[in-house]
Amino acid sequence: MTRFALTIEFDGGPFFGLQRQDNGPSVQQSIEDAAHAITGETVTLHSAGRTDSGVHALAMRSHLDIEKDIEPFRLMEALNAKLRPDPVAIIHCEVKPDDWHARFSCIGRSYEYRIRNRRAPLTLEKGRAWHVARPLDADAMHEAAQALVGQHDFTTFRSAHCQAASPLKTLDRLDVSREGDAVIVRTAARSFLHHQVRSMVGCLALVGQGTWGIDRMAEALEAKDRSALGLNAPPEGLYFVKATYPEEEQAA
Amino acid sequence: MTRFALTIEFDGGPFFGLQRQDNGPSVQQSIEDAAHAITGETVTLHSAGRTDSGVHALAMRSHLDIEKDIEPFRLMEALNAKLRPDPVAIIHCEVKPDDWHARFSCIGRSYEYRIRNRRAPLTLEKGRAWHVARPLDADAMHEAAQALVGQHDFTTFRSAHCQAASPLKTLDRLDVSREGDAVIVRTAARSFLHHQVRSMVGCLALVGQGTWGIDRMAEALEAKDRSALGLNAPPEGLYFVKATYPEEEQAA
Repeated sequence: MTRFALTIEFDGGPFFGLQRQDNGPSVQQSIEDAAHAITGETVTLHSAGRTDSGVHALAMRSHLDIEKDIEPFRLMEALNAKLRPDPVAIIHCEVKPDDWHARFSCIGRSYEYRIRNRRAPLTLEKGRAWHVARPLDADAMHEAAQALVGQHDFTTFRSAHCQAASPLKTLDRLDVSREGDAVIVRTAARSFLHHQVRSMVGCLALVGQGTWGIDRMAEALEAKDRSALGLNAPPEGLYFVKATYPEEEQAA
Repeated sequence: MTRFALTIEFDGGPFFGLQRQDNGPSVQQSIEDAAHAITGETVTLHSAGRTDSGVHALAMRSHLDIEKDIEPFRLMEALNAKLRPDPVAIIHCEVKPDDWHARFSCIGRSYEYRIRNRRAPLTLEKGRAWHVARPLDADAMHEAAQALVGQHDFTTFRSAHCQAASPLKTLDRLDVSREGDAVIVRTAARSFLHHQVRSMVGCLALVGQGTWGIDRMAEALEAKDRSALGLNAPPEGLYFVKATYPEEEQAA
């Protein structure tokens, strides 16, 4: 048995999410089916993060165990060939020790959330960004966001379906910056609650539009109440961008 | 009559090109139809550049003349409403003098060509970039490209269907740079021949792969013969990014 770590890029648009679902196509099922077609083995894909329907990944990290003797590069090529025409690509593949786990060994997750802030509808970025027509004050959003950095009870920013044992999380970074007519939110933490990033971004957009004052973000956090949530941002602007592992941090 | 200048963004994928075609949908037809629905007038859209089927625009410049009394912002909003769900958006609209012409007043055109250079197929950028699996040496491409800068007979890099009176063009810029696994070609000239950018990029890719030596680019130019062309790059990586006008240059 060999444990292969995969780095995966996907367009979340046509999927019901990364993890296997009973009700529709998932990235996990596409990759497990491709691996089965190559090896004849029934494999399970484990991933650093879970992503909702419509959420994208530039570099999701996952692993699977395979009995068949195959080189990582050959496995990557064969998986990519079988995955066509699904918008999922294995952009890196390497062998890891048997005790390396894409989810449990992961010590950090990073996401980017992309907003296009203009009157005109989206064309090339349709399904790749959240279109917000009302002007956003990115500086105000960034200032408001800083109240969420650190260890907090994020109950307000947590889906009713979240299965985490505790609503306590430590947010390492929540930065908002304007790049032309795009507003980009970059966030990192050891782990996130279900819908946490989209909930934080939705409320930040209310601050950016002036619907919420800057202090309202801290008040929403303090309320520890889902009903204090202003808005959940749509999935199409969200990208999983990085998973961090201890041995890779040391090497870098 | 008022002359309105439009700045247009579009995804070229579903269109047979910018200019009106007998055999399929075009950006020009979409916009002319939208303008007719708003004004009842039969208008003609004039544009700074012509783009082939599949070529995109981030900021095409065009104009149309309208009799109806309407503010530029209202026209932009109305056009965008009528254009849905076509992937065409009017991102700016302003009134120009009657002698301003999107095509004939234009003194400079800029394009970007986007290559993703990696083994894995494209997902989020499918139809938005040219996928080249063999490694490209972007530095060699840039060096080879410099032979084309300046005034030359570009017959080698010209479509058999090109209608320009002369193959002489002055290329102001042809820069190649690597950004991660993307290789970006940026080029600018007063005007280009039909297929010139895609033909230059196709040959540069041969240099990047080592199929052509660096000097081969100058030899191909010197040949002044379409049969010396190595490769025409596909349309999906090409973006029209800027049109320059004298009065805007002075203001800037």
